[in-house]
Amino acid sequence: MHLDLPAHGSRRAALAQALREAVRGGRLAAGTRLPPYRSLAEDLGVARGTVADAYAELVAEGWFTARQGSGTRVAEGVPVRPERAAPGPAPARPAHRFDLTQGKPDPASFPRGAWSASVRRALAAAPADAFGPGDPRGRPELRRALAQYLARARGVRTDAEHIVVCAGFANGLRLLAGLRPRDWAVEAYGLPFHHGILAAAGVRPHAVPIDADGVRTDALPARARTALLTPAHQFPTGGPLLPARRTAAVEWARSTGGVILEDDYDGEFRYDRKPVGALQGLAPDLVVYAGSLSKSLSPALRLGWLVLPDALTGQVVAAKGLRESWTSAVDQLTFADFLESGAYDRHVRRMRHRYRARRDLLAAALAERVPGVRVTGISAGLHAVLELPPGTESAALAAARRAGLLLDGLSEYRHPAAGAVHGGRAAADRQGLVVGYAGLGERQFEEAVGVLTGALRSAVGATAPPAPSGRDAAPPTTPHPD
Amino acid sequence: MHLDLPAHGSRRAALAQALREAVRGGRLAAGTRLPPYRSLAEDLGVARGTVADAYAELVAEGWFTARQGSGTRVAEGVPVRPERAAPGPAPARPAHRFDLTQGKPDPASFPRGAWSASVRRALAAAPADAFGPGDPRGRPELRRALAQYLARARGVRTDAEHIVVCAGFANGLRLLAGLRPRDWAVEAYGLPFHHGILAAAGVRPHAVPIDADGVRTDALPARARTALLTPAHQFPTGGPLLPARRTAAVEWARSTGGVILEDDYDGEFRYDRKPVGALQGLAPDLVVYAGSLSKSLSPALRLGWLVLPDALTGQVVAAKGLRESWTSAVDQLTFADFLESGAYDRHVRRMRHRYRARRDLLAAALAERVPGVRVTGISAGLHAVLELPPGTESAALAAARRAGLLLDGLSEYRHPAAGAVHGGRAAADRQGLVVGYAGLGERQFEEAVGVLTGALRSAVGATAPPAPSGRDAAPPTTPHPD
Repeated sequence: MHLDLPAHGSRRAALAQALREAVRGGRLAAGTRLPPYRSLAEDLGVARGTVADAYAELVAEGWFTARQGSGTRVAEGVPVRPERAAPGPAPARPAHRFDLTQGKPDPASFPRGAWSASVRRALAAAPADAFGPGDPRGRPELRRALAQYLARARGVRTDAEHIVVCAGFANGLRLLAGLRPRDWAVEAYGLPFHHGILAAAGVRPHAVPIDADGVRTDALPARARTALLTPAHQFPTGGPLLPARRTAAVEWARSTGGVILEDDYDGEFRYDRKPVGALQGLAPDLVVYAGSLSKSLSPALRLGWLVLPDALTGQVVAAKGLRESWTSAVDQLTFADFLESGAYDRHVRRMRHRYRARRDLLAAALAERVPGVRVTGISAGLHAVLELPPGTESAALAAARRAGLLLDGLSEYRHPAAGAVHGGRAAADRQGLVVGYAGLGERQFEEAVGVLTGALRSAVGATAPPAPSGRDAAPPTTPHPD
Repeated sequence: MHLDLPAHGSRRAALAQALREAVRGGRLAAGTRLPPYRSLAEDLGVARGTVADAYAELVAEGWFTARQGSGTRVAEGVPVRPERAAPGPAPARPAHRFDLTQGKPDPASFPRGAWSASVRRALAAAPADAFGPGDPRGRPELRRALAQYLARARGVRTDAEHIVVCAGFANGLRLLAGLRPRDWAVEAYGLPFHHGILAAAGVRPHAVPIDADGVRTDALPARARTALLTPAHQFPTGGPLLPARRTAAVEWARSTGGVILEDDYDGEFRYDRKPVGALQGLAPDLVVYAGSLSKSLSPALRLGWLVLPDALTGQVVAAKGLRESWTSAVDQLTFADFLESGAYDRHVRRMRHRYRARRDLLAAALAERVPGVRVTGISAGLHAVLELPPGTESAALAAARRAGLLLDGLSEYRHPAAGAVHGGRAAADRQGLVVGYAGLGERQFEEAVGVLTGALRSAVGATAPPAPSGRDAAPPTTPHPD
């Protein structure tokens, strides 16, 4: 069954909404038997419990019927596209006061004036062929500017000929999933949206465990040929990959003939010391480096890039086809000017400052009001993980949602295949909330933090903190550099 | 075997290049047996002869070996990504002086100043949420502006709730191919790139014959549930769908429960009388109307739209996912302003005037110098079909290419499944050249026309014209309104 789930937000709510749409649109006809939890969960890259919860919700709402022995089926008599079935005003989300889901930069901070100025300069300077059918590698102006920027800001070693522009990280991931052998290593925690893209492409995932020092690259399976890693800031649990583990990852790639896909989703936002350079710099022949504007400027631009080893460049370009089908040349030319004029550096610097202040506010409020919650993963990025005492995640989530907050539990980010690696129990013990602190304006965020700490006090109480589960764990008020 | 071929240009050259890349990139290993012509041709939606020619070319170049009884194989010892295997400076094309392939507007005419002004106004006016994760239906500002424009300019009946923005027509076609039942009706002539998209999605195509009055909608197969049609200007042979045939198409959809996908790829460019309104206006509940900026402004913007029947809207939105993955919000907001400020109407008017002058120049030059060639399909659009006497297409193409022209033969646009409908012979008799007259500047175009008529005189001679094969056929100097 094909269902598209969004990148962010509650898996259960998104799946339930996709199922309702499938019934309403006639794709799931009355009487159809739904797939078992396990197989749909595998297809979509979500936890089995998420599917069970979504089915239960639709049974409760009358869309499905569940009968002993005949499984879950689409109910009879559900109106298919009634009188006026145009989609509602916005994608379905539970009603909420504050959206604290991770992954979004502050939309109000988009640099409108500077971007407009770059458009004007870039269009005036562009050669006529920029408005003809696009080169699938992307505009040369942008690839040149990116090669310089990435060398300077992220320690990436490349040139314009080995960069391919794409429509955000997801587009790059889809391209590689279609090209690489079937066995991929993935971190035991990651973005379910990415797991879903890999599953849709027929990838066989191998979850690599995470311990106190991040992903255990010494445990990368020999069978996998591609490893999707987040070395700058393990997503979502936090913490950069330690030097010894970086070496181990490169060693794995070299000895197995494999390739590492480095998802550098928020490498620009490091708060307490210098940015940790990209893994790619260690081994440009073994690492595909992927970045995008989705965290640093806006996910609405749909602009990203792959930096490719020589041996993969031709394949990726060929897979894109002889013409660019997706990314806007105007945005590409504009971003090239935005980079070269220094506007991008200025924007990132300003946002780093603002996000850091919000992070400090969150950490301080939690330390004061809910000391039983340990804040981790906050030395970088746009979100924090609030580690909770075992067994309290669902109660904490429920309390936060009742209080009007939209946010995710840490267990929603656990890869469905991770149980087999860890042993289900140990992995399930890691509980927490993933809190985005970038998406709201300062005033709203301050209010949301008040609501959050109130909800957590009621759910978790003010007990002693759990044992730290990672080096990125920080004493609450002064975040520990990692 | 997965290969991406470009939208335009020689199929054979593109396929040969994709195969070279596959060998060089290691996807086709030495000794691998290539698929039979027929199966690869079906996969890619190209003619069998195109595959045979591409294979022969690679055998001649030493990439492949062909031996009786063991088929075509990848040769041993071909260097896989030699020393420096970064892709060349541009997608491979035969060397040429003038590019007369169809499908491109004049890139030098992109309205840079007006577009920059729209960016500035649109960004200043946009709400903050425009820079957050995108609604998969597209920006509401653009959908409202499009609903008004399409009603006024194309007779489309819809509202903002039934429009879904997409990354050009190809994105819309992929979305629908993934949703609709497997059997599709397609016109016997069309764009091979689109045939390839449908084939990749597992669509079973049924080619509908074309006669002197265009596509025979009375012959739409009852088995198909979706019909891909070009009612404004049959692609590439020219001519609008006659009223009786429009009624027949709607009747087919109503009686079979089918849906028509109306590809209105160049509906704005009609030269000799008023535009022919969209078929969608006849039956908004049975027609998906698709348009894009690829012909009217630039294919580099990657911006298009689907106008959907109520019953399909939710399905298409659900298939896009809960977040926009492709189209840039900045381009969407800008185009909304460009439409509402009147800049789009002004641009289309100016380009209509310019393209019409180029068309007249082409028709007059051919009438004077090569009367044996009949020019058809020129009452609208950005290309003409030069109908040739039977059996002369390949000689004419070869002569044109020797003279330094890049252009396509009409037979490359024939759907591979069309033989079964027509009887191969009758269909193969329709021969000609497809000449784009929009992509070059005026001066270059004039020179290219001189080269073209010279090449055709040598290949076809100055004999009497063949019998007209369509109502859109025009007396050479004063195009007949159709």
